[in-house]
Amino acid sequence: MTAQRFAALWRSLAPIGLDQSTGGYLRYAFGDAELACREWFTEEALDRELTVEPDGNGNLWAWWGDPSSGHAVVTGSHFDSVPHGGGYDGPLGIVSALLAIDTLRERGFAPSRPIGIAAFAEEEGSRFGVACLGSRLLTGTLPPEKALSLVDRDGTSLAEALLTVESEEAPPADPGADPSRLSRIGAFVELHVEQGRALADLDAPVGVASAIWPHGRWRLDFTGEPNHAGTTRMDDRHDPMLAFAATVLAAQEQARTAGAHATIGRVAADPNATNAIAARVSAWLDARAPEQSTLDTLVETIVERARRRCAEDGTSLHIVPESVSGATVFDAGLRDRLTTALGGAPVLPTGAGHDAGVLSAAGIPTAMLFVRNPTGVSHAPGEHATDADCAAGVDALATVLQNLAGEPV
Amino acid sequence: MTAQRFAALWRSLAPIGLDQSTGGYLRYAFGDAELACREWFTEEALDRELTVEPDGNGNLWAWWGDPSSGHAVVTGSHFDSVPHGGGYDGPLGIVSALLAIDTLRERGFAPSRPIGIAAFAEEEGSRFGVACLGSRLLTGTLPPEKALSLVDRDGTSLAEALLTVESEEAPPADPGADPSRLSRIGAFVELHVEQGRALADLDAPVGVASAIWPHGRWRLDFTGEPNHAGTTRMDDRHDPMLAFAATVLAAQEQARTAGAHATIGRVAADPNATNAIAARVSAWLDARAPEQSTLDTLVETIVERARRRCAEDGTSLHIVPESVSGATVFDAGLRDRLTTALGGAPVLPTGAGHDAGVLSAAGIPTAMLFVRNPTGVSHAPGEHATDADCAAGVDALATVLQNLAGEPV
Repeated sequence: MTAQRFAALWRSLAPIGLDQSTGGYLRYAFGDAELACREWFTEEALDRELTVEPDGNGNLWAWWGDPSSGHAVVTGSHFDSVPHGGGYDGPLGIVSALLAIDTLRERGFAPSRPIGIAAFAEEEGSRFGVACLGSRLLTGTLPPEKALSLVDRDGTSLAEALLTVESEEAPPADPGADPSRLSRIGAFVELHVEQGRALADLDAPVGVASAIWPHGRWRLDFTGEPNHAGTTRMDDRHDPMLAFAATVLAAQEQARTAGAHATIGRVAADPNATNAIAARVSAWLDARAPEQSTLDTLVETIVERARRRCAEDGTSLHIVPESVSGATVFDAGLRDRLTTALGGAPVLPTGAGHDAGVLSAAGIPTAMLFVRNPTGVSHAPGEHATDADCAAGVDALATVLQNLAGEPV
Repeated sequence: MTAQRFAALWRSLAPIGLDQSTGGYLRYAFGDAELACREWFTEEALDRELTVEPDGNGNLWAWWGDPSSGHAVVTGSHFDSVPHGGGYDGPLGIVSALLAIDTLRERGFAPSRPIGIAAFAEEEGSRFGVACLGSRLLTGTLPPEKALSLVDRDGTSLAEALLTVESEEAPPADPGADPSRLSRIGAFVELHVEQGRALADLDAPVGVASAIWPHGRWRLDFTGEPNHAGTTRMDDRHDPMLAFAATVLAAQEQARTAGAHATIGRVAADPNATNAIAARVSAWLDARAPEQSTLDTLVETIVERARRRCAEDGTSLHIVPESVSGATVFDAGLRDRLTTALGGAPVLPTGAGHDAGVLSAAGIPTAMLFVRNPTGVSHAPGEHATDADCAAGVDALATVLQNLAGEPV
């Protein structure tokens, strides 16, 4: 694969959902831009004579060969972005999958197993709050009755959002665990831009994942007593903004001490008025650690410090875990087979969650490939990979698919 | 005035803009609910054979007598609320003014000077960020070219919002200082619900204002570097949420130490995503103090602590003063005349800003009456005054208007 050929296909997708003012992407699950990405995918897949098929969970599939014959080798990723995120996180895995199929055909490869490309829905959780929503529904990790009632910031439910997809693509969505679809998948390999600088430091364009840190997101609702900002004596206040602020600082300090990651990047104050003491402040804690016990202790300590501050201020705290994932250790056999096929590519863990982690937890042999990110920036407009590295990623993915799908069952 | 009579008129206005789910009001300047309040006012004024007249600054006036004869006695307040604020802050002054005119007529009073009722626009600054917008434009404190380009949270400019009023009420809005209108006003008296518990503690239904604390609002923009919340090492971060949080706590601590008030009740994070380190956090600081020097030192100290934290984190701070008001000391002669007319009502200062403060700064003899608030809660659904106290407020206002307008020039 040449850098130019990668760039040609990449640039046909790149304008969709791009906010020129920030250079970031606004591709929310089932929103206009994400639906346009799905249409783009459908057209590109049909051009390659792949069979395109939606499932009941908002995910979209394309097949080279008949998936019902089983033991399929599936690759893919997602189109949705975080607000003003980069363009590579997700789409790179789907664009690379299409180009890997081109490469395999040019190599004259005739697969012994079906090869599939999956575009998973709402991987970032930016719209409905639950990351890896599509793969969690598919694997049954998330009960559909719970999922359908999730609402976005505008009050639209997932059930309503799925109707948008229904009108475009038959059959109608019927969310929930889909064991027959899962049972056809022999292996899943997700290619993703690296979200860190490990490959840059190692001077390698492509790496193989070893594990995903256990991680989760918790909503913290701090409730106090609304009042006039100008006239209420400081001693008479029950201001929930104070415990929120103390928790932001506690999360940062505790994560640093624990060798883990903790972030509060999302906040909503109510009524959010300049001259009123807040009635309520909601904050979303994102926490991740190399070990489950470290993560548990980290979150417990942050919550304990938050509660202590609430007690001082006469405010209260309610906690809602929104999505929590244990550690993923990818299939060791598959990982070793990939590194060997790629001539000894480096192996590295990641703090980021992926649909690959959800499929791995569901018992599917799963692996990931990472493509070098020179600055390590991700979930922000500065996220980047060079065309040459992306092309190397396509070649690596083609080699891996050939290795896995070349072998009859 | 009986409590029942007060309640009858009060209840005809009360449903407009009420959010049943919180019990708070959403009456934003020139929004549907506030325009409905203005219509209500116009009808009530016309029913009383008052002349209704908009000015070029979005304020609405009603007159008993010919205002061009000068030396008018004006009362009034505003209809707009903070988000989910109480129903008394503002509207009580307008409803009381209408009922005070009824009372004066029943007393057979024939005014020697015109009596006016003003409904000022955007007193809270909840929509366009600048408190007392209508009175500041009227007095020339706020240049119209600066005001017209102010935008609300949806990107609508004040110039666009004023068109909503234009279509309802001729003549077209032509914002800016209006000295001929101001020169007609001999005295201004604003009746307002107390925003504190001083009258409750003194067991008095009505009081007279002595002064308004110097106060202001400052927007603090903390800028950092957006990145992935899961994968970015704690040491590699430039997270603006940290300096924001430190500033929330600094504001509270410094205000307590200074015997002043400081609040951060409004915040906006960008991109405001759970799994992304924020690129930017904007916070609005509301600060007030009994003395100007105390306020200056308070704000300087908070900003200094904010900058220090930014320096630690490699983030930056930009500060925009949105509205800053010096101390108002109400006209001493007028204040004494009111307290005497009211048989020795208590005199008290307030930390809340009012259009009365803006008119006072413009050289108009100005006074305020406060009506008891049993809990002291304001800018929140719990804001309250009993019907009996409100009726006592109407009687007091009628007495004051009679005293001021009964004397020929």
